Amino acid sequence: MAQFETSRRSLLKAGTAAAAAAIAPAAAHASENDKSVKFDGEYDVIVVGSGFAGMACAYKVAKAGLKVLMIEKMGVFGGNSAICGGNMACPVNPVQKAQGIKDSEELFIADCLKDGLGINHTELLDVLYRRGNDTVKFVTDCGAEFVPNKMLFEGGHSVPRSYEIKAGSGSGYIVPMYETLSKMKNCVMKTRTKFDDFVLDKDGRVTGVVCREGYRFNRKLASDDVENKTGHRRVYKARKGVMLAAGGFSRDIWFRQVQDPRVVPSTDSTNQPGATAGVLLKALEIGATPLQISWLQFLPYCNPHEDGFGVTVNFTNHACMDLGMVVNKKTGKRFMDEHAGRKIKTDAELKVIGKDKNYPIAICDDSIVKAINPSFVKAPLAAKTVFVANTLEEIADHFGIKKDAFLAEVKRFNQFVKEGEDKDFHRILKFNNGLTISKPPFYGVEVAPKIHHTMGGLLINPEAQVISSKTHKPIPGLYAGGEITGGVHGASRLGTVAVLDALTFGMVAGENLAKA
Amino acid sequence: MAQFETSRRSLLKAGTAAAAAAIAPAAAHASENDKSVKFDGEYDVIVVGSGFAGMACAYKVAKAGLKVLMIEKMGVFGGNSAICGGNMACPVNPVQKAQGIKDSEELFIADCLKDGLGINHTELLDVLYRRGNDTVKFVTDCGAEFVPNKMLFEGGHSVPRSYEIKAGSGSGYIVPMYETLSKMKNCVMKTRTKFDDFVLDKDGRVTGVVCREGYRFNRKLASDDVENKTGHRRVYKARKGVMLAAGGFSRDIWFRQVQDPRVVPSTDSTNQPGATAGVLLKALEIGATPLQISWLQFLPYCNPHEDGFGVTVNFTNHACMDLGMVVNKKTGKRFMDEHAGRKIKTDAELKVIGKDKNYPIAICDDSIVKAINPSFVKAPLAAKTVFVANTLEEIADHFGIKKDAFLAEVKRFNQFVKEGEDKDFHRILKFNNGLTISKPPFYGVEVAPKIHHTMGGLLINPEAQVISSKTHKPIPGLYAGGEITGGVHGASRLGTVAVLDALTFGMVAGENLAKA
Repeated sequence: MAQFETSRRSLLKAGTAAAAAAIAPAAAHASENDKSVKFDGEYDVIVVGSGFAGMACAYKVAKAGLKVLMIEKMGVFGGNSAICGGNMACPVNPVQKAQGIKDSEELFIADCLKDGLGINHTELLDVLYRRGNDTVKFVTDCGAEFVPNKMLFEGGHSVPRSYEIKAGSGSGYIVPMYETLSKMKNCVMKTRTKFDDFVLDKDGRVTGVVCREGYRFNRKLASDDVENKTGHRRVYKARKGVMLAAGGFSRDIWFRQVQDPRVVPSTDSTNQPGATAGVLLKALEIGATPLQISWLQFLPYCNPHEDGFGVTVNFTNHACMDLGMVVNKKTGKRFMDEHAGRKIKTDAELKVIGKDKNYPIAICDDSIVKAINPSFVKAPLAAKTVFVANTLEEIADHFGIKKDAFLAEVKRFNQFVKEGEDKDFHRILKFNNGLTISKPPFYGVEVAPKIHHTMGGLLINPEAQVISSKTHKPIPGLYAGGEITGGVHGASRLGTVAVLDALTFGMVAGENLAKA
Repeated sequence: MAQFETSRRSLLKAGTAAAAAAIAPAAAHASENDKSVKFDGEYDVIVVGSGFAGMACAYKVAKAGLKVLMIEKMGVFGGNSAICGGNMACPVNPVQKAQGIKDSEELFIADCLKDGLGINHTELLDVLYRRGNDTVKFVTDCGAEFVPNKMLFEGGHSVPRSYEIKAGSGSGYIVPMYETLSKMKNCVMKTRTKFDDFVLDKDGRVTGVVCREGYRFNRKLASDDVENKTGHRRVYKARKGVMLAAGGFSRDIWFRQVQDPRVVPSTDSTNQPGATAGVLLKALEIGATPLQISWLQFLPYCNPHEDGFGVTVNFTNHACMDLGMVVNKKTGKRFMDEHAGRKIKTDAELKVIGKDKNYPIAICDDSIVKAINPSFVKAPLAAKTVFVANTLEEIADHFGIKKDAFLAEVKRFNQFVKEGEDKDFHRILKFNNGLTISKPPFYGVEVAPKIHHTMGGLLINPEAQVISSKTHKPIPGLYAGGEITGGVHGASRLGTVAVLDALTFGMVAGENLAKA
C-alpha cells in the first residue's frame, strides 16, 4: 500500500529549506510528488524522545527482539528525566507493608485528585496503581537502584509511598537503560534528530516519521520549533508503530504564554531548554485529542537565585518542606502546610512573594540534614545557595526575618511536632519522627516557584494508545506516555507521581507495541 | 492556482459515504482525485455558524456589498445566541456617563481578570473596551433595541455597565439581523448545512469549505459529529476568507468529559443540543492554536427542575441575585456574595448542593420583582418554577428552610442594604437602591449550576484572525469570533461580556474581510 505523508502541509522540510520562506505560511502543501514516500530506513518501532517514557518503551521493545529507532532532538539523551529528582511513587508496595504503612488505591487516587482539583482521569491513575509494582521490578531489572527499605513522605501524599533513587536524580534510571540499549544491535539511538511529521497510510495508520538528522537546537531563537531549519530530512518507516515521548512545553516561551498570559518570557523553568510543544501540536494535526493543555505546574521549592532546576531543590524539598518549616520574612510566621501538594504551596508562596519579591525562607536544622540523603546537602552548600548559622537569630538577621515572631514560631512548630498536631495548617507530622528545629547548625534558604511540568497534553487510554478526536478510538499505530500526555495528574501533580507515570506508560506502550 | 482540500485526511465525505465504514479510522486519506477540487459555488466570504459572531460578520460583509454564504448545521438560525439572556456589557458608555457611573478600561479588565483567574488575554479585552460603543451603535443600526437609559448591574461587575435588550433574550439581535440579511440578494443562508472541512490552497490559505447540505442533526447519537453521515457533500469557494463562528461545546458529551471528567453525560447544560466541538477540532488539524480549552463555565442561576436553559434564569439572576439573596436550606443563611462572578458563585453553590442535592433557595419580594423586566417574571410564574407566598414563613415551610435562622438572616440582609455594607460577604449593595426583602408577596426558587460556556478555544489576534501554532502568525483567510475562540474571558467569564465579545469580534472580522 502506498504511504502518504501528512507533511505536504508541513513546513519543516529542511531538505528543501532553501525553497521555503523564512517562516512559511500555515498549512502549506508540499510538492506533488509526496504522495508516495521513499523511506530512508525501516524499523519495527520508532520512539520520539528519550526520557523516562521513551527509554522504558524502547527498552521493553528492544528486549522483545524488535528493531527500534529512538530519536532525540537535543545533543544528549534523557530529556528532563535525566535531571529531575527521580524519586518514584508506588502506591501499595512491599516496603510500605514491611513498615506497617497502610496505603490503598483509594487513598492514592484521593491524594492525586486533591491537588489535581478533581479533574484527573482516574482510569489512568488506576493503571499506575495496578502496574506500579511491575514498574518497580522493571526499572530494577533495567539497573535502577533504590535506597533499600526506605519510603519518602512526599508533599501531598497522605502516607510515605515513594522510593528514593540512589543516584539522587532521574539519571539513576536513564543511565543504566541507555547503557543496555546502546549495546543492543537492534536498537538505534540518534541525538540531534528532530521529529517533524508523521507518515500515515491511506487508512490513517501511523506508519513512520519524517525527521531531521544533524539538527541543532538553538536556544537563542524566539521559537526554535518555528524558526530552526537545520539538519537534513530523513523518513523512517515504523512497521508496528510510533511512540510519542517528547515531554512537555515548560520552555516553549510562546505556547506557554498563550495558555497562561501571566507567564512571561523571563519566567524561569526547571526544564531543559528543549522542552517545547512541537510534537504535541503536530499530533493535534492528525486528530489526536487535546486535554487540559492550559494547566502549567510550578515547582514550589526552587531557588530564585539559580537558573533552571538548580542544585538546591532536593534540599529545600526534603529537608525544609518534608521535615522543617517555611516562613514569611515580613511576619516571621509560617503561612502554609509545607507538606501540601504543589499547587496549594505554589499559590501560597506566590501570594507571599507578591510584586516586591518577598521570597519565603525555608528552615531546617542539623538533625534534619542528617536524616536526608547526603547528596541533597552537598551541592547547595558548595553553591552557597543555603545559608548556615549557629543560631536562629543569625538566620533571622541574614535574611531579614522579623526576629521575635520567628523565634516564637520555631518554638510553636517544634511543639506541634512533639504533640503530633499542626494547629495552624493541619500538616501531617507523624512521619517527622520527632525531628524538630533545635540542633545547630541551622540552615535557611530562599524559595520561589518555577514552571516545572505542563499538566495537559494528548489523551491516551489505559493501553497508552493516543485517542483520536475524530473517531473517539485509538489512532492506529500511535502511542504516547509521560509529559506529552494529559489526564493522569489533572490540574496539578504530586511529586514523584510523574516518574511513575512516565515509566509505567512507557512500559505499557512497549508491551503493546511488542505484541502489535 | 489549483486548490487542495485538507480533507483527504477527512472522513466526512458524505458524498462517498457508502464507501466509508460506519466510523472510519483516524486521519483517513481520501481518494486520489481530490488534489484539485470542483467548487459547487463561489462566494467572497463564508461564515460557519449563525449566532452573534456569525450574524455580525455576515451583516458587516453583506452591507459592504460582498457575496456571503452563511451555513448553520441546525434547523434554525441563531444557535445559543438566540436563546441566551442577551444583555450586553459595554465599558465606559454614554448611559453610564449620564447616570454618573464611573467606569474605566482598567476597572473593566480588573473585573474580568478576577473571575477569569488572571489568565485572560488582555489584548482581546482591550478590543472590547475600544470597540464596545461601536458595537452598540452597530447592533442598534441592525435593529436591536435596548431598554432606554438603563444599565444593568451584573454579577462580578464593579459598576452597572450592561445594556438590557428589550426582547429579553439574544433573539433581540438575531431576529432583526436575520430579517435584513434574508432580504439581501448577496447573502445566502443555509440551515441543515454542516461544516466538514477546510479547503486550502498550496500556500496554506483557507480558500473554501467542504460541507454537507440536507444534513440532519441527530441528538440521539452518542456523538453526532462522529457518527452522523447525513446530507450531501458540497464544496464552496471563499474568495476573501472563512469566518468560524460555530460556538462552544457545552453539549459535546464526549469532548467536555475529556476536559473535565467530573462532567458526566447527564450533566445538564443551558445550551442548544448542537453545541459540539467539531469545527474547533477541525481547525486544530490545520494548525490553529488551542488555548485554555479545558475551562468549562457553569451558569449559577439555573433551575434544576427545568431542562436546559429553561425560563427561570433571568428571574433568578436579576431579581434574586442582583437584588435579593440566596440561602442554604440547612442553615437558613446566606453563603456567598450573590453578586460575585460566575465561577465564585458556582463553586459556592456546588459545595452547598453536595451529594444530597441540597439546592440553595433564591429569594426576593414584590418590590424587587417590580424593579426588573416584567418578561423575566411571567414565564417562570407560568411554568410554576417559582413559589410565591404571602409570608417568609410560608417560603421557609415550602422549601424546608431552617425557619428561625432564615427569618433572622432576611432581617440581617435588609439591614445590610440599608447601611450599604454587607458585613458577611462584602457584596456591593449601593446599586440595590434601597430595595430590601420586605414587601409581600415573596418569591422563592431553587438554584443549580449548569454547563453554560466553554471558555477556551482558538487563539485569535485583535483583528479576529486565527493564529497558527506553526508560524505564530495568522492563518491566511481564516477568522473567528465568539465562543469558538478563547482568551477573552480566561477561566471564567462575567455575565453579558460574551454578548459583547461575540458581536464585537464578529463585527471586526466582518470589517477586515470586507477590506481583505
